Amino acid sequence: MAYNLLKGKKGIIFGALNEQSIAWKVAQRCHAEGAEIVLSNSPLALRMGELNNLAAECNAPVIGADVTSNEDLENLFAKTKEHFGGGVDFILHSIGMSVNVRKGIPYYENNYDFTHKGFDISALSLHRVLQLAMKHDVINEWGSVVALSYIAAQRVFPDYNDMADNKAVLESIARNFGYYYGTKKKVRVNTVSQSPTRTTAGSGVKGFEGFISYAEKMSPLGNANADQCADYCITLFSDLTKMVTMQNLFHDGGFSFTGVTQAVIEQMEK
Amino acid sequence: MAYNLLKGKKGIIFGALNEQSIAWKVAQRCHAEGAEIVLSNSPLALRMGELNNLAAECNAPVIGADVTSNEDLENLFAKTKEHFGGGVDFILHSIGMSVNVRKGIPYYENNYDFTHKGFDISALSLHRVLQLAMKHDVINEWGSVVALSYIAAQRVFPDYNDMADNKAVLESIARNFGYYYGTKKKVRVNTVSQSPTRTTAGSGVKGFEGFISYAEKMSPLGNANADQCADYCITLFSDLTKMVTMQNLFHDGGFSFTGVTQAVIEQMEK
Amino acid sequence: MAYNLLKGKKGIIFGALNEQSIAWKVAQRCHAEGAEIVLSNSPLALRMGELNNLAAECNAPVIGADVTSNEDLENLFAKTKEHFGGGVDFILHSIGMSVNVRKGIPYYENNYDFTHKGFDISALSLHRVLQLAMKHDVINEWGSVVALSYIAAQRVFPDYNDMADNKAVLESIARNFGYYYGTKKKVRVNTVSQSPTRTTAGSGVKGFEGFISYAEKMSPLGNANADQCADYCITLFSDLTKMVTMQNLFHDGGFSFTGVTQAVIEQMEK
Amino acid sequence: MAYNLLKGKKGIIFGALNEQSIAWKVAQRCHAEGAEIVLSNSPLALRMGELNNLAAECNAPVIGADVTSNEDLENLFAKTKEHFGGGVDFILHSIGMSVNVRKGIPYYENNYDFTHKGFDISALSLHRVLQLAMKHDVINEWGSVVALSYIAAQRVFPDYNDMADNKAVLESIARNFGYYYGTKKKVRVNTVSQSPTRTTAGSGVKGFEGFISYAEKMSPLGNANADQCADYCITLFSDLTKMVTMQNLFHDGGFSFTGVTQAVIEQMEK
Repeated sequence: MAYNLLKGKKGIIFGALNEQSIAWKVAQRCHAEGAEIVLSNSPLALRMGELNNLAAECNAPVIGADVTSNEDLENLFAKTKEHFGGGVDFILHSIGMSVNVRKGIPYYENNYDFTHKGFDISALSLHRVLQLAMKHDVINEWGSVVALSYIAAQRVFPDYNDMADNKAVLESIARNFGYYYGTKKKVRVNTVSQSPTRTTAGSGVKGFEGFISYAEKMSPLGNANADQCADYCITLFSDLTKMVTMQNLFHDGGFSFTGVTQAVIEQMEK
Repeated sequence: MAYNLLKGKKGIIFGALNEQSIAWKVAQRCHAEGAEIVLSNSPLALRMGELNNLAAECNAPVIGADVTSNEDLENLFAKTKEHFGGGVDFILHSIGMSVNVRKGIPYYENNYDFTHKGFDISALSLHRVLQLAMKHDVINEWGSVVALSYIAAQRVFPDYNDMADNKAVLESIARNFGYYYGTKKKVRVNTVSQSPTRTTAGSGVKGFEGFISYAEKMSPLGNANADQCADYCITLFSDLTKMVTMQNLFHDGGFSFTGVTQAVIEQMEK
Repeated sequence: MAYNLLKGKKGIIFGALNEQSIAWKVAQRCHAEGAEIVLSNSPLALRMGELNNLAAECNAPVIGADVTSNEDLENLFAKTKEHFGGGVDFILHSIGMSVNVRKGIPYYENNYDFTHKGFDISALSLHRVLQLAMKHDVINEWGSVVALSYIAAQRVFPDYNDMADNKAVLESIARNFGYYYGTKKKVRVNTVSQSPTRTTAGSGVKGFEGFISYAEKMSPLGNANADQCADYCITLFSDLTKMVTMQNLFHDGGFSFTGVTQAVIEQMEK
Repeated sequence: MAYNLLKGKKGIIFGALNEQSIAWKVAQRCHAEGAEIVLSNSPLALRMGELNNLAAECNAPVIGADVTSNEDLENLFAKTKEHFGGGVDFILHSIGMSVNVRKGIPYYENNYDFTHKGFDISALSLHRVLQLAMKHDVINEWGSVVALSYIAAQRVFPDYNDMADNKAVLESIARNFGYYYGTKKKVRVNTVSQSPTRTTAGSGVKGFEGFISYAEKMSPLGNANADQCADYCITLFSDLTKMVTMQNLFHDGGFSFTGVTQAVIEQMEK
């Protein structure tokens, strides 16, 4: 069901890889709600080729950008402004990668070159996007930026590894840049802290299946899926949430404020 | 602008008193978005008479209820189900009153009979509404309940007095009942923590004007007003936020995560 | 081992019932650290008779007080000041009772007369103690007040029932009164949020054993016991923590910031 | 006044520069409480020469280490174990530096090479210390690690710049490593979030004086000073706080939970 919630709005979606991606679902929902979008991902992701299907479906150009490169981002922003004949109203940041996770290195043995790399891609990329967007006046007044996060920023989930630290700083960047962008241009910046989701990124985490079923049992409404996350992001891009900024918003079926459930207690008693 | 976000939905709005009320604005927005509503307030509030104007505008019945009375609430729910020919999809709880505040009694000299009275009306009323709604199966599956709160539940604002404690327990009730109602019927329960707003209730707080201007200076986007709060509530009643539950959601222009602003620092240096 | 941390200090300990009580352990530790104390509990608890053993051990008078009675508290404070020839330096509030819990009434069927009773005893009693102490100038400058709480104030633990709401408001009262007492007399007020503990009060909660073993598995250091809690309280009464106020301090082996542990994941996979 | 709280304990203090440093005060207090310590700082800090005075006073060796170098830290740990004939019981991490702050570059124009440098020194250094300590079994069972933080990790203080993000990740590292070190060796890891303090590091922040006076007005007990912070750290190194871990502990006179004070409201009305 569509409501024309984003009619006339323009946006950039970072991070769609394939049909499992949350960013993919967000792009589809934005399109369905009347927005025009630009899709961006890393050169490596583009070579995997599926993004073109989404681009065709959404009638959206694909503009590659390595989010650790100022030059790439400036190129993306210039082309986007040219494409739309002006600035954008929303941006989705759905980007994260940890070399330590990929290589199966436990948190207490992290390689710091890998840590810096993951920090640059997963967290600092949000700062970079916002800084260059502000510099080149890419986001229109009352625009909305959403970055996807995870509750490991607040509490320890062992296998999440150094992505926990990356999400903590991602949320901090959203707050801090939200202050400046809000003061200067009324642009709001928030993070959505989503249930564990079966995406390509999520599946890379060790013990993911055991964890996702624990989260399901610990959430009164169950885990939120990618489609529901897209629905929620739509509200945050719309004009109905103009005064929500610098927040981390849990979208998780109640997991974040559940200490324990009957279902988990029963499992513990086995 | 309307989107038909609540088309086909039915709801109960507690607490509209006059045009300044947040609940009044929420009722109007629900109506504009296609919902059918029932309006409720205390017998005293009904005698003040303005609610009939809203009822006419929204084509909504008014059913009085003292929210500290199980009997009144059961009557309200029975009549509502009869009116709609079934249950409701959303409820707004915008109810608060402190006798200690009204009488100008400072927090450290509170009269405990007054404290119990305020607790009953301002906080326990949410429990009562939810308990009786659950008992009589008033809320449909995937329904949504929103109660209005204030950041004094987390941090001290001296003149807010015992309403701070009432809001703390209100948010706790939303969490706890959210667990049960979520588990049993997929109903979500959240609180919206709104900027200080010039309503009849707000204006009763001592030093309100000085405080509202401080909040304005401390919010990167400025204070959120009642219309914007209504917009936000609409998203929470819609099907786009089905997995958000047991949360306290700040709707405050960024106040909640701002430690200090340049504007306040400059004022301090005077 | 003792350090003379509280040498020359005087205090009141509310809530010691028997050797399992946290308050009992705190009293012993205060005594061992050189403090002089007064013991108080409800008339009913006094009739159970064990408190006299502690009184003898600590050379402390026992002065009964129903904490829902201003008169009783004023009598306690007057006698305490007479006993010490002046005010006190610290107070422990270890008081909690829910009739709904005792009668096994689930949260979603709570009886509101019982709710008011529990609120009065478990939460408002802290306000009463502080208000009357301030009125009669019972606490010396730089004094310290600690109330025992539980993480159900932040997250849902189903069987904890309406005690969750009571703890939420208890913590709110600590914050709010902490502001006033701090501003006026440099008195600090904090809550300690303790691991589930096998006390008479704790054991009354349904499913307590299953829950305590879950908490043990979810805490990197295991559950904190009553002796360790007493140790921690001692630091909060000492002169080494003068600037800590209006805080809720978790004393729980890391439970509060652990999202999941390997031990729990393994149990889930069974 | 001293209590022999740390009698027989051994520790490492990172970050003492001169008499204004919090680490300097902590070292003195540790010594006074009966601990033996090793002092460490960067080669640059050592060349400034004042640390030798503290070393003489505390009868402590000084062992330089660049905390961004694994090799330096391994050398420090080897020499420390040799000096003590075994492991240590506590570590203070009081380390922070931002090139962006030093060069007066605003947050929204940050240079990312500088950001990485600051992240490495201010935040990742805690991970490095803990990882290498764990690898070489440097910390004894039930040992305690404290890192100094600031509330900018939770809320925005504009001039604090990218140090806000560094403190957010510092606290995240404390939580995450606290989980592993707690599980493996019962070592606890916490951060202390201290009032703004007139140290060499603090004074480098733009507008620091205006800010410190705002914090003073916003804290019911006033700002906590460096001596009081040292007192608090002593309790966290002692055996009285063994079950406190993975926490961020505010030591700030109540600032963190104060929304506004009468003093600030009055200033706003000028």
